[in-house]
Amino acid sequence: MRSQNYGQQAVLVFETGEPVMETLKRWLAQHQINGGSFTAIGGLRQVTLKYFNTTTRSYEEREINEQLEVLHLTGNVGLLNGQPFVHAHITLGTREYQTYGGPFGDGVVPPVLELVLRRVGGTLTRRENAESGLTELYPEASRFA
Amino acid sequence: MRSQNYGQQAVLVFETGEPVMETLKRWLAQHQINGGSFTAIGGLRQVTLKYFNTTTRSYEEREINEQLEVLHLTGNVGLLNGQPFVHAHITLGTREYQTYGGPFGDGVVPPVLELVLRRVGGTLTRRENAESGLTELYPEASRFA
Amino acid sequence: MRSQNYGQQAVLVFETGEPVMETLKRWLAQHQINGGSFTAIGGLRQVTLKYFNTTTRSYEEREINEQLEVLHLTGNVGLLNGQPFVHAHITLGTREYQTYGGPFGDGVVPPVLELVLRRVGGTLTRRENAESGLTELYPEASRFA
Repeated sequence: MRSQNYGQQAVLVFETGEPVMETLKRWLAQHQINGGSFTAIGGLRQVTLKYFNTTTRSYEEREINEQLEVLHLTGNVGLLNGQPFVHAHITLGTREYQTYGGPFGDGVVPPVLELVLRRVGGTLTRRENAESGLTELYPEASRFA
Repeated sequence: MRSQNYGQQAVLVFETGEPVMETLKRWLAQHQINGGSFTAIGGLRQVTLKYFNTTTRSYEEREINEQLEVLHLTGNVGLLNGQPFVHAHITLGTREYQTYGGPFGDGVVPPVLELVLRRVGGTLTRRENAESGLTELYPEASRFA
Repeated sequence: MRSQNYGQQAVLVFETGEPVMETLKRWLAQHQINGGSFTAIGGLRQVTLKYFNTTTRSYEEREINEQLEVLHLTGNVGLLNGQPFVHAHITLGTREYQTYGGPFGDGVVPPVLELVLRRVGGTLTRRENAESGLTELYPEASRFA
């Protein structure tokens, strides 16, 4: 993965064979990113999509093994128990220009994925909510603002 | 709704039962946001989608009462006659990972919607264009740039 | 096309009859934008979608002549051989709220397209990779960071 920091922003280019979520979380830990959001476009294979079932309060999963265009991957990054946490949703396109999508589990790149990250200058804390079954976002005040 | 300002950016977390557009416009008025753009992901029920019919020059509407993933909600905020105006488009995902979308009317959250807003540092003025039937965007020069 | 610069950001409003890619590239050259990302919403007709075939290592194309909502157009801008280069993916919505999408070739606006661009403060260099058939992104260090 090639990456470059530009002040509040960073550009990450994932290469063939890299699992996006795992690679992104390692980068976030290395660069001590406590809060931000990102957008990515590119291509993926071996994608895991999730769907949050509000009745059972748990995620259902589906794996896809097909070459797909990432029309849009957007997410928020923060900390859960001091570790990087990523919440992202994806829209995928097929060779026939059909689309599907859902919450993003993970995916392996080929041929490439370009991601632009923007820090918020504060910590986006995540806390598990046993009642809803979700890991909810609590934006904390910046030390600078 | 929980929110936090981070300089040019803000993070808003909508909670169960909150209508997104109404809640967002009230927040924009309170924080005197004259221009910016946002991206949101999460889940919605009771969504109203719109479609601008370029022949009749008016919006058609459809209401959906189903638990849906918000794969992507993106919009621009500005002022129309001095009041907050939001123009947003949404892509939704079903439990079967199918997608649909259109211009966003409104939607009620459960379980949660996370929105990141970025101000532009100037006013994005909206003016009604009787000929096109649209409320068009006129970006005004910043006082700072 | 109406446009306004706001420091690191810019807002571009494309008007009826304008080809998006051609108009955007001309604006990028005039404003000497070497690196950034953008998001746009609006409407298009005469859209060209692309699909990168990883087996043949080339793009397949499809043209659409229909009034469509742009649910989301996102892209990265940089330089290829010193000239503006745009890599963008689009999600489109029909009057029946169905969606399709893919890599964006070009499209002609009616009725309007609103685009928000954010510079990264460095150069996003593109280089042609003969092996993969892709024009790959190499983010370069900022002179300021």
